[in-house]
Amino acid sequence: MRVLYHHLLDPGSRVVRLLLAEKGLAAELQHEEPWKRRDAFLRLNPAAEVPVLVDEDGTVVPGAAIIAEYLDERRPQPGFIGFNAVSRVEVRRLTAWFMQKFAREVADLQIEEKVVKRLAGLGFPDAATIRVANANIHYHLDYIGYLLEDRKWLAGDILSLADLAAAGQLSCVDYLGSVPWEEHPGARDWYARMKSRPSMRAVLADRLPGLRPPDYYDDPDF
Amino acid sequence: MRVLYHHLLDPGSRVVRLLLAEKGLAAELQHEEPWKRRDAFLRLNPAAEVPVLVDEDGTVVPGAAIIAEYLDERRPQPGFIGFNAVSRVEVRRLTAWFMQKFAREVADLQIEEKVVKRLAGLGFPDAATIRVANANIHYHLDYIGYLLEDRKWLAGDILSLADLAAAGQLSCVDYLGSVPWEEHPGARDWYARMKSRPSMRAVLADRLPGLRPPDYYDDPDF
Repeated sequence: MRVLYHHLLDPGSRVVRLLLAEKGLAAELQHEEPWKRRDAFLRLNPAAEVPVLVDEDGTVVPGAAIIAEYLDERRPQPGFIGFNAVSRVEVRRLTAWFMQKFAREVADLQIEEKVVKRLAGLGFPDAATIRVANANIHYHLDYIGYLLEDRKWLAGDILSLADLAAAGQLSCVDYLGSVPWEEHPGARDWYARMKSRPSMRAVLADRLPGLRPPDYYDDPDF
Repeated sequence: MRVLYHHLLDPGSRVVRLLLAEKGLAAELQHEEPWKRRDAFLRLNPAAEVPVLVDEDGTVVPGAAIIAEYLDERRPQPGFIGFNAVSRVEVRRLTAWFMQKFAREVADLQIEEKVVKRLAGLGFPDAATIRVANANIHYHLDYIGYLLEDRKWLAGDILSLADLAAAGQLSCVDYLGSVPWEEHPGARDWYARMKSRPSMRAVLADRLPGLRPPDYYDDPDF
């Protein structure tokens, strides 16, 4: 059985869970708190980061983008990284946008301050950092709305890894009640479609003990 | 003619230049200071980051890792991203290690403080940030030495994108005189081999006006 080492509020872990579900691949989930630097986990991934996939043949694959490339090569149908060299550029560009740029400017800041600090006993959230993240998110939600003016999904007319990347990132920030959907109807419409997918409903059903999401969090009509 | 928008002290730009040279592909270099947010450049890459490749057919490809995937698909011989799904995991894992983790923990800090602040008129380097980068680099150089104990190149017995990624990152930090080679002989031996390659010699010949590298910077016997 395939095993995915993940964390409930790690965006990359969510992206891999969404991709596995969309591809119809099963995996046993192992919850990992990577900041504890467990020896057995460090041997799997010396970078000490989730997600890590251990495939059925024992192949160890660390990192959401690398797992996605690996799964799309090993199990190409249905594919989520484009259908030729040019469409793959657009999928990978937007995947990197959300997995790296959005993560750095919004999600990592919110999660570090509101979740990791608390779980790792590192003190209280820093209000200035959270203000920066709250300011930055508008530009990303505007960009989603802009892309969807003439596309059905983020990277074109086909659901792709870019949508899963954006939904994985945004769903973690939304768990913390920090996505101003009402000001960004284009992004909200896209996210409502994402929320209706069975892959997403499973991810949104999880709860971190002691930390409740807002009531609208798993409701596709929000 | 292919065009590469790059910056002389941007690690990702160097990685793409190394890859183009190793593949024997020509490109016209356009020097870009992305923090100036030039309109024509933002239309190429709304993320406002170098490198950006504009291929001969007009295809616009932003970001070093995405350009590398694109070039390895379009011009597969010689390949630099492994020869099967498992070897590609190792190449991509180490490429991400240097392009993201090393960048975040070392190179971006040094370059932001010592180069971008100066070129963009943002004030003086922050000594505390530079101390953090100087402390972090040892762990990465140790890791290079560890990998090379039983490998010829970083991801195995074949030169790969992982070597180009590490060399592109380290060469920028080395331009600033901030790589403690003498304490890390394993990493130094590997970098000496990299420096001897024609692809690398061209990159190391460039000088940023008003900022001189150390004397040993482009010397393979250092």
